Amino acid sequence: MSEKIVIIGGSAAGPKAAARARRMDENSEIVMFQMGSDLSMASCGFPYYVGGFFDNRNMLLCTPTGVVRDPDFYWNSKGIVTKTNTEVTSINPDVRNVEYRNLATGERGVESYDRLIIATGAKAKMPPVPGAGLDGITNLQTMQDADYLRKIRDDGNVRKAVVIGGGLIGIETMEALNLAGIEITIIELMPQLLSFLDWEMARLVENYIKGKANVITKSGVAEFIGSGGSLCAVKLDNGTEIPCELAVVAVGVSPNVRLAREAGIAIGNLGGILVNEHMETSIPGIYAAGDCCEIRNMITGENVLAPYGDLANLEGRVAGENAVKGNIAVFPGTIQTGICKLFDYGIGMTGLSESAARKSGLDYMTVVNASPDKPGYMNGKLLVTKLVVHGKTGKILGAQCLGPGDVSKQLAIWATAIRGNLAVDDLVNNDLPYAPPYSLAIDHSIATVHIMQNKMKGLFRGISSIEFKDKLTARDEMFILDVRGADEFEQSRLGAGEVLIPLGTLRNRLKELPEDKKTEIVTYCKISLRGYEAAVLLQSVGYENVKVLEGGLMAWPFVKEK
Amino acid sequence: MSEKIVIIGGSAAGPKAAARARRMDENSEIVMFQMGSDLSMASCGFPYYVGGFFDNRNMLLCTPTGVVRDPDFYWNSKGIVTKTNTEVTSINPDVRNVEYRNLATGERGVESYDRLIIATGAKAKMPPVPGAGLDGITNLQTMQDADYLRKIRDDGNVRKAVVIGGGLIGIETMEALNLAGIEITIIELMPQLLSFLDWEMARLVENYIKGKANVITKSGVAEFIGSGGSLCAVKLDNGTEIPCELAVVAVGVSPNVRLAREAGIAIGNLGGILVNEHMETSIPGIYAAGDCCEIRNMITGENVLAPYGDLANLEGRVAGENAVKGNIAVFPGTIQTGICKLFDYGIGMTGLSESAARKSGLDYMTVVNASPDKPGYMNGKLLVTKLVVHGKTGKILGAQCLGPGDVSKQLAIWATAIRGNLAVDDLVNNDLPYAPPYSLAIDHSIATVHIMQNKMKGLFRGISSIEFKDKLTARDEMFILDVRGADEFEQSRLGAGEVLIPLGTLRNRLKELPEDKKTEIVTYCKISLRGYEAAVLLQSVGYENVKVLEGGLMAWPFVKEK
Repeated sequence: MSEKIVIIGGSAAGPKAAARARRMDENSEIVMFQMGSDLSMASCGFPYYVGGFFDNRNMLLCTPTGVVRDPDFYWNSKGIVTKTNTEVTSINPDVRNVEYRNLATGERGVESYDRLIIATGAKAKMPPVPGAGLDGITNLQTMQDADYLRKIRDDGNVRKAVVIGGGLIGIETMEALNLAGIEITIIELMPQLLSFLDWEMARLVENYIKGKANVITKSGVAEFIGSGGSLCAVKLDNGTEIPCELAVVAVGVSPNVRLAREAGIAIGNLGGILVNEHMETSIPGIYAAGDCCEIRNMITGENVLAPYGDLANLEGRVAGENAVKGNIAVFPGTIQTGICKLFDYGIGMTGLSESAARKSGLDYMTVVNASPDKPGYMNGKLLVTKLVVHGKTGKILGAQCLGPGDVSKQLAIWATAIRGNLAVDDLVNNDLPYAPPYSLAIDHSIATVHIMQNKMKGLFRGISSIEFKDKLTARDEMFILDVRGADEFEQSRLGAGEVLIPLGTLRNRLKELPEDKKTEIVTYCKISLRGYEAAVLLQSVGYENVKVLEGGLMAWPFVKEK
Repeated sequence: MSEKIVIIGGSAAGPKAAARARRMDENSEIVMFQMGSDLSMASCGFPYYVGGFFDNRNMLLCTPTGVVRDPDFYWNSKGIVTKTNTEVTSINPDVRNVEYRNLATGERGVESYDRLIIATGAKAKMPPVPGAGLDGITNLQTMQDADYLRKIRDDGNVRKAVVIGGGLIGIETMEALNLAGIEITIIELMPQLLSFLDWEMARLVENYIKGKANVITKSGVAEFIGSGGSLCAVKLDNGTEIPCELAVVAVGVSPNVRLAREAGIAIGNLGGILVNEHMETSIPGIYAAGDCCEIRNMITGENVLAPYGDLANLEGRVAGENAVKGNIAVFPGTIQTGICKLFDYGIGMTGLSESAARKSGLDYMTVVNASPDKPGYMNGKLLVTKLVVHGKTGKILGAQCLGPGDVSKQLAIWATAIRGNLAVDDLVNNDLPYAPPYSLAIDHSIATVHIMQNKMKGLFRGISSIEFKDKLTARDEMFILDVRGADEFEQSRLGAGEVLIPLGTLRNRLKELPEDKKTEIVTYCKISLRGYEAAVLLQSVGYENVKVLEGGLMAWPFVKEK
């Protein structure tokens, strides 16, 4: 006997669960509820619609061959009944049904189920400050938000906007509005943008943004100031007023769990629906998937909220299969891989940052590698990677990567390596696809594990930009050695009292170094490969305390002399 | 006590071994011999120099900051003595020295060593046919070859060229010469180009090349025909003469092992130097690295020749470390990952093809997935992937990928997955970086393992393009069902007697299907996702023998009606 599957939510996890359920059993009855009028919207695409990467709104709602995914499509192509503009008002597990109300007609009804899948998503948060009801304040969460912001682009009347929140959505929104010709200020409560990154990596992003947007960190919003019912400024908690006609709030989302909670389904400490590895809730036969759930971080074992479109689809697939077949499919959890585009930069991470590893109490090591993705003659572009590995075993714990180079490939490699429990020693000879249009002979990811291996073997003694900056601030006695060429030094330099001795002349100029072999020496170059070679040379002539500035000048997040 | 390291070969593996040895011990004496005048040439970049991707020849010989890697650079920056234009004439393991001769001055000498690293590379093969000495015949293996072909581009006098050999170098050369405005014919002895691909995948490449070059397979060269000492035609073994002023021979390379053989070092059945996992030859203290070696295929355990620039570097790094430190570093082998660019296409593979898996006697399954790399609204481009997995465990054995999409990332994922011994079940929920500029919500690689998982579970019954073509040729009775839209059918179709019933109408038109539920039915669409949904539907109404054409029309390698 085929079961009847009811799904609450028609955006990402819901439709995927429905489609998977259908493919597992053509004869099951499948009913999907959607509160809005659109189904299966490509919501991750909203910033690109707003930013003018494409103009045809239907592309967000269509199959690749141009068929709108409306109720007719779902019925004709997939045999799935969809009820749009329909709110499920309660789940009644005892009698296995849901009650609903059509928001257009007011009509109410009851739908029974054998298995239920909750995919109610998440709601954009709003700061609880005065003026939040003014015109000109929005999120970028719904199709309506996207339409609203796209109209602003098309009308061309807004001059200044504030983006509140420097997470993934905030960054994507900032790009979209900048491309619409709007002057942007981005406001973040935390001391950095993109809080999943370590501070110095986020700072590199902030440096890159300069000239494209104003960035204000460590600031909350105190009030939205209006004039005639419309926003005219955002007031920060330090009293500063930023004039603007538009504010986009992107301070995160909260799981929509009211229905689940009222039905007695267990909710976690983070506010999401609790599910087991089969995506089943605390009530047998009721599954949940997508942004409304808490899922397991596979590295720490702790629950997390991970409201990403890809995970929603994968979770939906597992929930859909299990709803039909019983609990045969497993969703193992997330390593919280994320990526965003910011003009010419890709920015992303997978696994644990250093700060997350520290919080988890793990024994870890880090390294920073700044080097190109491809040969110079193929127009190679910079990548900066910060790798975090387990201190003893070298197991990959996480990687952050950013820059104009091919960040997406790098993160895919790290994510798959973490999935495979691989360690540094497993990756030093990783047999990756090499040809000059795609990679250096030693791929950036491999070069990164090479440096880490050298560090673990004690061959490479690195100093992070933050440690070095702290020493500079504390006026620690050090000999700072820049081993680049004179031409490079002219173009750009630290200005921290460093001495320039190009690597090629260092062997003949050793007498210019401090006599005391115990002097702390920090070497660097553009990316710190030459810095490393200099350190090896200095150690060989007896210097005992030589460190290499990791990532060199390319990964230096602080102000330089020039 | 530091050891003296001598290295024979200064192209890729040699310089990497030298640099690694230096970093392991700043005090060891390192001498590197190079027969030509250039050192550390970026030989994988030759096709791009010839093709005009860049004009500054020095970029092939320089560090990223523009310093030519000449003997002064090696001495000043790395403390490595290099002897260029110097041929090592013999290795004398009993007395631990090598004899050499300066090719410019004729001067002879002897250099003793504690550890020796052989990195003599490989030599381009030449077909043993008449006329090979004519002007206008070259390889693209040396810097001189690159100079010769670049001059032909710059002079602009050559109108027609023949490329002999359809492997990676042949394909890259073809692109380079096409970009130089030369009409190309590419000749391959085997029944297909790129013999590391399965036939039907190679055929997709051949279809793509049409209009850009003439492709002649299953043909050898019988003679180079000259006029006044210069090439004027290439004669095939079937007698056809192809007029041309230039022939580039790219029929592979042979390891340079004369020196090693004469020194009593063991040579393998494939003609390469035999090494253990430490890259040490049969004579202790003598290492080898790069194209002159045989290395282990990590999947089959068999030795292979794998003359790739990335492996040469990785092998050199291991040899350099072990030469200094004793055998502490391990080179585990290769999975023969390769990639090449061909105009807008990336083409590559990692691990085993179906044909290699069959030859190895492995129990395997395959699947083909044709789908875009990104959403349509972000200008997503097609990828065609053929995945080979172990039949019982689902362990990834190999993947071939091609198309205008992001092939490099796909192959990096598969290669890392193979390195991690991952199976289909490990990858169905792989947490990859997703944002619309980089990927679909379900990445192409994940979609591929989803299909494979469906196939392994018996949900998806596929038929390969070759099997289906065989059935068509044999005029097997089948009902062929195209479930695309009428508009798509107008644009392009198989013309194999198929019936068009768009998926969205199929539920209402089931009566148009054969009455006999045992009839063999083959369904497909553009990429066979709708084809799959149709098959599920047909099975649910009792059809017992429904198959989905894998990869749909996008992966169809044969002629279509339109």
